[in-house]
Amino acid sequence: MSGSRFVVAGAGLGGALLAAQLGQAGHRVEVYERRPDPRKSGPAEGKSINLAISTRGFHALEQVGLGRRIRDMAVPMRGRLMHDRMGETVFQPYGTTADHTIKSVSRGGLNLELIRCADALPNVVFNFEQACVGCDPDSPAITVRDGAGSDLEVTADVLVGADGAFSAVRRSMQRRTGFDYSQSFLPQSYKELTIPAAPDGSYRIDPDVLHIWPRGGFMLIALPNLDKSFTVTLFWPPADTAGLDATEDSGKVQAFFMEQFPDAVPLMPDLLEDFRDNPAGALVTVRCDPWHHRGKTVLLGDACHAVVPFYGQGANAAFEDCTVLMAALAAHPVDMEAAFRAYHHARKPHVDVLADLAIANFRVMSERVMSRRFLMRKKLEHVLERLLPSSYVPLYTMISFSRIPYGDALRKARRQDRILKCTAGAAGILAIAAALTILL
Amino acid sequence: MSGSRFVVAGAGLGGALLAAQLGQAGHRVEVYERRPDPRKSGPAEGKSINLAISTRGFHALEQVGLGRRIRDMAVPMRGRLMHDRMGETVFQPYGTTADHTIKSVSRGGLNLELIRCADALPNVVFNFEQACVGCDPDSPAITVRDGAGSDLEVTADVLVGADGAFSAVRRSMQRRTGFDYSQSFLPQSYKELTIPAAPDGSYRIDPDVLHIWPRGGFMLIALPNLDKSFTVTLFWPPADTAGLDATEDSGKVQAFFMEQFPDAVPLMPDLLEDFRDNPAGALVTVRCDPWHHRGKTVLLGDACHAVVPFYGQGANAAFEDCTVLMAALAAHPVDMEAAFRAYHHARKPHVDVLADLAIANFRVMSERVMSRRFLMRKKLEHVLERLLPSSYVPLYTMISFSRIPYGDALRKARRQDRILKCTAGAAGILAIAAALTILL
Repeated sequence: MSGSRFVVAGAGLGGALLAAQLGQAGHRVEVYERRPDPRKSGPAEGKSINLAISTRGFHALEQVGLGRRIRDMAVPMRGRLMHDRMGETVFQPYGTTADHTIKSVSRGGLNLELIRCADALPNVVFNFEQACVGCDPDSPAITVRDGAGSDLEVTADVLVGADGAFSAVRRSMQRRTGFDYSQSFLPQSYKELTIPAAPDGSYRIDPDVLHIWPRGGFMLIALPNLDKSFTVTLFWPPADTAGLDATEDSGKVQAFFMEQFPDAVPLMPDLLEDFRDNPAGALVTVRCDPWHHRGKTVLLGDACHAVVPFYGQGANAAFEDCTVLMAALAAHPVDMEAAFRAYHHARKPHVDVLADLAIANFRVMSERVMSRRFLMRKKLEHVLERLLPSSYVPLYTMISFSRIPYGDALRKARRQDRILKCTAGAAGILAIAAALTILL
Repeated sequence: MSGSRFVVAGAGLGGALLAAQLGQAGHRVEVYERRPDPRKSGPAEGKSINLAISTRGFHALEQVGLGRRIRDMAVPMRGRLMHDRMGETVFQPYGTTADHTIKSVSRGGLNLELIRCADALPNVVFNFEQACVGCDPDSPAITVRDGAGSDLEVTADVLVGADGAFSAVRRSMQRRTGFDYSQSFLPQSYKELTIPAAPDGSYRIDPDVLHIWPRGGFMLIALPNLDKSFTVTLFWPPADTAGLDATEDSGKVQAFFMEQFPDAVPLMPDLLEDFRDNPAGALVTVRCDPWHHRGKTVLLGDACHAVVPFYGQGANAAFEDCTVLMAALAAHPVDMEAAFRAYHHARKPHVDVLADLAIANFRVMSERVMSRRFLMRKKLEHVLERLLPSSYVPLYTMISFSRIPYGDALRKARRQDRILKCTAGAAGILAIAAALTILL
């Protein structure tokens, strides 16, 4: 099927990477994107938001030759640094080796590199400021509308819905009988704030960690940027439980931050303006089944499995989708439907597990990271990993620093835990037996 | 809030009943419905489909004075009659008393009576052939389109979405942040067939039971109509597993029915035509949260909780919604938002339980009803109910012949089961002890 004509809806992270992969495999690719061309909107685009790329993401980036380039623009984080209400901090490493770091990358910058990479191919064409206003998954075709309001119908051999959590392509499939779909929101909202670089151009706090101000039910986090700033995100529960409303006056916001995050306030000179002006975001989990329609239309990334951000795996999972989809296309070169079925079959159970892990990790990040028990547990995990590297691998390590499918990683982690408990129990019995032998 | 202006989207069972209840409570009500006025389309409308109304449904019908009228047009069914592949039958009663019957009613006929009842009120107006093409849950307002294609925006104090499983009102709420939604299909399809009256105008098979041809994974059922016919429904799995495809030629369809339902084939002279011409339906479960929006818009029945038909409770649950919503409006006469919140709070957990029970009941009806163990269990349940009427009530009896909320019924049933098991265990021990006493 080399030489098929693919239309990709969405030039975000997943859509742009897939365009590059499809283009490199010799397919003709047209990408349609609602937003303007980020190459024309300047470097500011890449500043506001960042995300963590780990092993799965880099594997896919390396497939298109971008691994080195993205590593160079990333800030490695080797663990979490927790800040308590007194400004005291405690560090917890992500892994056991020097390369066990997750990489903080500018989302806009990463997107830009992916678009450049794909657009350098003669058989890949990007069309910006073309909003998808209609979709026919059977044909397949999308109708796009340009800034002047005129519509164009674009047909293809295959339509890829890489158009995010609120995907128009998925919505068109959702009306079909037999299409299972769910969207589910966490009660928390989020808002982005900024710690700018210090006046001398340096980082104001440690740049090689992910900072967390865990407060149980809500939290503040900060990820480093290459320009010495940090992108800060406040996750907080509905107004009636948090003591903070997005419409509160500045005095109350200031008081809330001073009480909860006293050491963070001096780092954010624009706190009150950012809090007032930046929109509150929602945390949605999207699941659907199937991810494809009659060998004509297929979904990717957030469009079929949006997850909440607390395991740092949303973009990594979308990139891994591209890897698996390309492998399925290679394995079924003349049968698109078989390829899509294989892709869906290989990915769906694993991203379902990721969705649950990501939701559960909110409590880990906002609450459990402060407990002595949690820190001890992490230390024990890392000791075991060092002692038994071939048989004990902590769950976080498998998710972030391996490409073991998410569901397999969770099963392995549970098995390890059971063995550990049995071993601990047996060791206890042996110890008691030994003590009795000595005493009697 | 008496005198509020309600716009109801949908004049189906739930919408028409609520219109009658709201009208009787003194509110102004306008109902908009896509289909033509059933009072003009003649009696044929009510023939094709029937459903089972039980205690919850009749309670609501009695609230608008229609209990007697609907009872008169219903055919009571006192239990299930299972047909095996040899044409042998076995009977299993639904309850223990003469009034433990569920009532087979023509859906069209019931809908007609509800519309007549509501439309007789001066403050209730029905508008037919007005399809809802747009909805603003904030205003609230709907845009309806008539047969000529001209649109009209209708505003209201309160908009009620009673527009079924594919509700346009719900879809408009679904785009809002924080609105959880899921749709989930069973793999089975269904198709309606008919057993007409005998040439002498009598029923061809027993009219006082629900007939089931359970075949494990698929089944045929038949419910009696007042005109001596039966509405038959085939539920069957995807083509690749059932040996039957909707596109099969008549010879194969005939052979399939002769093999699986030999005693039913002679009862259905139009089997092949019905099978060819009637559309295959899908079995969807819909859940959403919340069911209301800012005291302006509220959902009802299938629009917020479509369930599969295997517990015979879809219409009953929609009618019970009306009862609970009217009680909430009475309890919060000046605060719509509080009323809707109370309604949602009172209903949501219970219809969630119903959705699960209905899905589980497919296996009961298509498979377990044929097992000796199941029939023994039902007999034991009915013996216990007779012996301990104040403390033991089977789950089916609570769901169908009481108004105990669904979730409470399930909890009570589980508690009963636990006690029963303990009692059986204790009785066993006592019996063994007694035997030992005698022997030793």
